[in-house]
Amino acid sequence: MQWTVYLSGEIHSDWRQQIEQGAEAHGLPVKFTSPITNHEASDAAGDVLGSEQDNFWRDHKSAKVNAIRIQTLIKNCDIAIIRFGDKYKQWNAAFDAGFCAALGKPYITLHDEAIIHPLKEVDAAAMAWARTPEQVIEVLKNIISV
Amino acid sequence: MQWTVYLSGEIHSDWRQQIEQGAEAHGLPVKFTSPITNHEASDAAGDVLGSEQDNFWRDHKSAKVNAIRIQTLIKNCDIAIIRFGDKYKQWNAAFDAGFCAALGKPYITLHDEAIIHPLKEVDAAAMAWARTPEQVIEVLKNIISV
Amino acid sequence: MQWTVYLSGEIHSDWRQQIEQGAEAHGLPVKFTSPITNHEASDAAGDVLGSEQDNFWRDHKSAKVNAIRIQTLIKNCDIAIIRFGDKYKQWNAAFDAGFCAALGKPYITLHDEAIIHPLKEVDAAAMAWARTPEQVIEVLKNIISV
Amino acid sequence: MQWTVYLSGEIHSDWRQQIEQGAEAHGLPVKFTSPITNHEASDAAGDVLGSEQDNFWRDHKSAKVNAIRIQTLIKNCDIAIIRFGDKYKQWNAAFDAGFCAALGKPYITLHDEAIIHPLKEVDAAAMAWARTPEQVIEVLKNIISV
Amino acid sequence: MQWTVYLSGEIHSDWRQQIEQGAEAHGLPVKFTSPITNHEASDAAGDVLGSEQDNFWRDHKSAKVNAIRIQTLIKNCDIAIIRFGDKYKQWNAAFDAGFCAALGKPYITLHDEAIIHPLKEVDAAAMAWARTPEQVIEVLKNIISV
Amino acid sequence: MQWTVYLSGEIHSDWRQQIEQGAEAHGLPVKFTSPITNHEASDAAGDVLGSEQDNFWRDHKSAKVNAIRIQTLIKNCDIAIIRFGDKYKQWNAAFDAGFCAALGKPYITLHDEAIIHPLKEVDAAAMAWARTPEQVIEVLKNIISV
Amino acid sequence: MQWTVYLSGEIHSDWRQQIEQGAEAHGLPVKFTSPITNHEASDAAGDVLGSEQDNFWRDHKSAKVNAIRIQTLIKNCDIAIIRFGDKYKQWNAAFDAGFCAALGKPYITLHDEAIIHPLKEVDAAAMAWARTPEQVIEVLKNIISV
Amino acid sequence: MQWTVYLSGEIHSDWRQQIEQGAEAHGLPVKFTSPITNHEASDAAGDVLGSEQDNFWRDHKSAKVNAIRIQTLIKNCDIAIIRFGDKYKQWNAAFDAGFCAALGKPYITLHDEAIIHPLKEVDAAAMAWARTPEQVIEVLKNIISV
Repeated sequence: MQWTVYLSGEIHSDWRQQIEQGAEAHGLPVKFTSPITNHEASDAAGDVLGSEQDNFWRDHKSAKVNAIRIQTLIKNCDIAIIRFGDKYKQWNAAFDAGFCAALGKPYITLHDEAIIHPLKEVDAAAMAWARTPEQVIEVLKNIISV
Repeated sequence: MQWTVYLSGEIHSDWRQQIEQGAEAHGLPVKFTSPITNHEASDAAGDVLGSEQDNFWRDHKSAKVNAIRIQTLIKNCDIAIIRFGDKYKQWNAAFDAGFCAALGKPYITLHDEAIIHPLKEVDAAAMAWARTPEQVIEVLKNIISV
Repeated sequence: MQWTVYLSGEIHSDWRQQIEQGAEAHGLPVKFTSPITNHEASDAAGDVLGSEQDNFWRDHKSAKVNAIRIQTLIKNCDIAIIRFGDKYKQWNAAFDAGFCAALGKPYITLHDEAIIHPLKEVDAAAMAWARTPEQVIEVLKNIISV
Repeated sequence: MQWTVYLSGEIHSDWRQQIEQGAEAHGLPVKFTSPITNHEASDAAGDVLGSEQDNFWRDHKSAKVNAIRIQTLIKNCDIAIIRFGDKYKQWNAAFDAGFCAALGKPYITLHDEAIIHPLKEVDAAAMAWARTPEQVIEVLKNIISV
Repeated sequence: MQWTVYLSGEIHSDWRQQIEQGAEAHGLPVKFTSPITNHEASDAAGDVLGSEQDNFWRDHKSAKVNAIRIQTLIKNCDIAIIRFGDKYKQWNAAFDAGFCAALGKPYITLHDEAIIHPLKEVDAAAMAWARTPEQVIEVLKNIISV
Repeated sequence: MQWTVYLSGEIHSDWRQQIEQGAEAHGLPVKFTSPITNHEASDAAGDVLGSEQDNFWRDHKSAKVNAIRIQTLIKNCDIAIIRFGDKYKQWNAAFDAGFCAALGKPYITLHDEAIIHPLKEVDAAAMAWARTPEQVIEVLKNIISV
Repeated sequence: MQWTVYLSGEIHSDWRQQIEQGAEAHGLPVKFTSPITNHEASDAAGDVLGSEQDNFWRDHKSAKVNAIRIQTLIKNCDIAIIRFGDKYKQWNAAFDAGFCAALGKPYITLHDEAIIHPLKEVDAAAMAWARTPEQVIEVLKNIISV
Repeated sequence: MQWTVYLSGEIHSDWRQQIEQGAEAHGLPVKFTSPITNHEASDAAGDVLGSEQDNFWRDHKSAKVNAIRIQTLIKNCDIAIIRFGDKYKQWNAAFDAGFCAALGKPYITLHDEAIIHPLKEVDAAAMAWARTPEQVIEVLKNIISV
């Protein structure tokens, strides 16, 4: 079986590449999917539908266009990895975690020890907590071993 | 019909009381439910099950005990109000929003204009965005009018 | 058992009153629910959340506030009656019909013979087609008889 | 991943061809599905099952045969595009929108500015509103970009 | 807890009365529900919607009106008892059994030993097979005992 | 898209072959699935698990083994054709119809005019009623046309 | 809100009484439900349906009658407590745990430290692990506090 | 159609190999999936995420990592075979059975006659009980025959 793993969250470091390369290096039968990870492209995803004077509506339109992609990919994945970095609010990552939890879709969180306490509700519904991309790769190896 | 409204999020201001009092003042047929809103009690919810040396596991046990309450109340509510204040990470509030979205449970966000952008994914799946408890009360009046 | 019947559609004639009075006259154990049936109040349901310059967004906000009421009542009803009058587009009524169909919620359409052809997809998923409120009352009597 | 997009609604203009050609021109990995778009064939879909004297039943049989196709394709699609033209009642398009909404299937509406108000409930549950097939193509590009 | 038991099937003997009286005699906290059990009333359930020349459509309209009652009561019951007598085709009883099975709604069949073989698929998905109303009452006592 | 059509019911005439050959003759992209159609093999499906003295249990074991096949194929099909012949009780066919109805799986009945009345509940939940295999083929052509 | 708590598992000690009395002593708004806890009555639940020579079928009939009660009560509860004692196989308790897990029904395990390892899969899907009835009562207090 | 069969339970005998070889010998179109069947590897599945001093948490982490694999494979299978051997508690096997039952996923138990009584609840929800791998293969042949 080929596994599909959705990579949710932080878009300002190379954790996705590390996991993808690690999986490839170990020959894991995994296909990775992701949201739009280019910040500007993501913010502008709805601009083609007409410009808005009010920032709320510009954000609203782009977020909904992105949500079509995100929610479709989450529904189609076997496992989600949800990454919290050390900057920004990252409420979208926590939203994805709640979305997975309600669907019964298993997810693994990836974050530093420093933010254990504010993430306790997110971790409580996770199947695992990893500190590093390497740990994620090792866990995927254990899950996916033939 | 009596409506059940779950009040998720910030526990350091009196927004819950304002909404509850407003609903009562207008005679709305609403029952409100909430998570444990005492910060210390919430953090200690699992302590009775045995002490932990590792903070991760202490948080984990308490968060899961709280989750029994939270997820049961969310599944039983008709509407959720999800409040984001100006402090703390509040990932649990965003998690609840994602949980509601996946269940098809309608929710209204309550937050200031200053955090529109980081909340755009959460607002995109909401049925309304309110800036003040008064607005929430007015919206509830419109929804629940006999 | 008390039955809950949702009355969807046309808001410019007294068909709801006729059905409610007929049910009461026959002593049927039915509770009726409806959307906001005051046209202006319905269009203004979201105005309290802030005024909009763009009509699309004013409509959008009000329609979503109304949708909280409508979809909650549809999910909670046992039967929906969906009325199509001879004026206006009434796409919201057809939307409700599709919503019911996907949920497996039984509905009865109420409309004149003149619009059989354009309503054929809506009628195809209905459990019955009635021409008059009296017929709806008679059908409810047959369904609900103790 | 190959995406499946269902094209619902108006059958009297070439909007489907425009979207299909645009997607092909941009090399998008999309497969398009549609209802029977030949008006006469659609109306006659059930005639083989025996002629009917009553128009209601002729329509009923054809609409149900068509519904097997339509509802199967909607359940199998990732995204629906729902087009409202400037003629006819088009209640079937609004029905499809409600059907998608209840299933949690994301849809994009495609219609002119002139009918914003009567479509407000349909747009309220949509993930995006496009005015032109070109906008739909651009949005699909943003959603589907690898 | 009060249990709701739906009594499906044969309408030409007094098995429903026997079970209802037995449950009452034992003081079981059970509420019984049933389809319309008057044969003529059941066949005529849709006649108020207009007469039909074609028997198929007369039956069709009545069967759909009855189905609103039947499927609502089945969805609302805790247990169904499905009775097969020694006459008629009784395909509606087998239909109800399949409907229950797909919903995960537990049912008990009630029939003579003579028709074990043709009912084997229906019995295979049942939770119990009873030969007499007395046995049904005894089983209900075991299930419902406080 | 390749469509999967499950052929339920009568096993003593060649209606399956007629439909399969007709579909092939028209080049329809359809895959057909069926229960075990050999009567003796079907009755003996559970015999390998040990002989039974009581006919009820022999039937029970075989019916359950067959049910694994049947229910899996029904859940995986796009459309079911449910055939009622002129002999036997055929409660399993009516059971399959109820099972499909509860799952929202569209089905077409195939039977003579003589049994319209006892099949009215089964036909009421069907998407079409065909009298002959030729009609089924024509309907499939209309549904599946590219 | 009144909470419903299902008490699954061991029937040879008084842990149910301890929890019920503790909840009452603290005035918790809880209703407790349980399977038949009389061992002989449970084993004989299906005997009224006819005697069996083969033990497998006697057990089978009784287990299915009991399952009607058990699965209905589990589906209707808010929380399950699943108790593993120090004797017997207790596979039914583990079965209930898996049943709850698949339904998304939160459960708390109650067992000694000595059987942590063989219960690791059951505990992994639990929301909490308690060693004593007193701990269960304390956790319920935390969950249910008004 | 290719069938997917999940092999749950005992990991200390060669029953999986026997079934896989038997299926291959008969040319059955079956793909088999399994949990990690190496005892030590399974117990250590979470160790990469950091060592734990408390055995409960070590087990907890490993069991959750394993659960990602197990529950994904169960959700993706058509049939599960659940094996109980003569040693160990094997609560995980009973948990898988309950999980399957709640999902409506058909399963076959494989165990000796000696443990009929303690497994009666697990067998009650099974579609078949086999004593030997050979019987499982024969049943699969009957289910899967083209």
